[in-house]
Amino acid sequence: MLKIVVLGTGNLSKHLCTAFIKAKDVEIIQVVGRNEEDLQQFSDYSPISNDFNAIADADVYIIAVKDDAISEVSEHLSKKKGIVAHTSGAIHLNAVQPDNKGVFYPLQTFTKGKSVDFENIPICFEAQEKESLKTLEILAKSISKNVHQIDSDQRKKLHLAAVFVNNFTNYMYHVGEALCLEEGISFDLLKPLILETAEKIQTIPPKDAQTGPARRNDKKSMTGHLELLNNETHITLYKLLSEAINKAHEKEL
Amino acid sequence: MLKIVVLGTGNLSKHLCTAFIKAKDVEIIQVVGRNEEDLQQFSDYSPISNDFNAIADADVYIIAVKDDAISEVSEHLSKKKGIVAHTSGAIHLNAVQPDNKGVFYPLQTFTKGKSVDFENIPICFEAQEKESLKTLEILAKSISKNVHQIDSDQRKKLHLAAVFVNNFTNYMYHVGEALCLEEGISFDLLKPLILETAEKIQTIPPKDAQTGPARRNDKKSMTGHLELLNNETHITLYKLLSEAINKAHEKEL
Repeated sequence: MLKIVVLGTGNLSKHLCTAFIKAKDVEIIQVVGRNEEDLQQFSDYSPISNDFNAIADADVYIIAVKDDAISEVSEHLSKKKGIVAHTSGAIHLNAVQPDNKGVFYPLQTFTKGKSVDFENIPICFEAQEKESLKTLEILAKSISKNVHQIDSDQRKKLHLAAVFVNNFTNYMYHVGEALCLEEGISFDLLKPLILETAEKIQTIPPKDAQTGPARRNDKKSMTGHLELLNNETHITLYKLLSEAINKAHEKEL
Repeated sequence: MLKIVVLGTGNLSKHLCTAFIKAKDVEIIQVVGRNEEDLQQFSDYSPISNDFNAIADADVYIIAVKDDAISEVSEHLSKKKGIVAHTSGAIHLNAVQPDNKGVFYPLQTFTKGKSVDFENIPICFEAQEKESLKTLEILAKSISKNVHQIDSDQRKKLHLAAVFVNNFTNYMYHVGEALCLEEGISFDLLKPLILETAEKIQTIPPKDAQTGPARRNDKKSMTGHLELLNNETHITLYKLLSEAINKAHEKEL
């Protein structure tokens, strides 16, 4: 039985705990956080504490706090023997102060109140000690089938890639919505297309899945589209993205 | 029973026919196209012809050919009484030459060999005659629950919005893949995130769903990301999209 303590009471912490509760051979022995109200939500299934100087002894400490607070929170665990693992995509392993450092990074976007199926979420783990690597792998496999040992440099790049496919893609949805609203059309009309676009690249490489005027170098359609746009940012984006797509496919034309 | 003739033998034509076969009260009485080999694929369930001067009499003629060929193909139908409807997002109703003009535009990306559930695909229809509007609505409802009367200007804008949420989003996936490959990481790791990003905005408005360093105006993370990029296009895109997201959310900070 792996004993774990979770530090932090935010969105990620809640999603992780929900997954750990269901895991065999894992026991959440404590959830620690500053915010009393948030902390109460964990009391149904775990002892809770708001005292960072009274953290229980565990095999793994999962730090699920904001990037800026990781180092500071980890200092409270300097005398512990268990693995101290943060959960951030962007932060280096060495941000963890205690010697038995680790990373336990679930690569997903978590929304308050929206449940996710952890089984398919990639969990990227990292540690300095061989024994710790093994333990984090066991912990990751207890909640996911999609487990990867990734070093800090790879994780940083992966996090950057995630910004493109998640944050920037979401902005494309935002622009799509704005264009619909300008014409009094419901954004709902685009939702099936958005889903299919995401589903398509589950089996087809993005380059092969690319369609549209820019891929075909269909200048007439592109000029027509630019005439419809009146927002400077949208115009610049349209030109830049069309050029980039065109360049990626120019050898085919 | 609505009798229809489908003109064109490409991807969209195949997907449409697959849906129409299952529809009650609709009969495909002919599929017309130039390419003999493509045409043969329709012969299991419909008479076929490669002679555009021997088109059968139908209630609706569905033109599913490339944008540039719509006008020309429609000319072969100048003596017909039925509705002549094209299927393009970008082309005006008036590109159809015969008087009984129409548009029957399924808003989706269609992949060869990948079946889609037509029931949820928005079908945007348009016509000049009231009677024709009714007929196209009946035809649309025979294969989809998601049917909308949309004029040519709205459709053009909708098509532009689709370029952002489909073509440009797919390019974001392409960049994400490139960044993974640089570090020897499998693109598979990003696939659950890509799906969840698309699923999220089915219920949450894109603006509310936005996350990431740009929304938080987290300059440290953004500078770190820019240092990792070495492709000029990716750098320009990162800056432009981060600024746009930041601007859309600046009042919150």
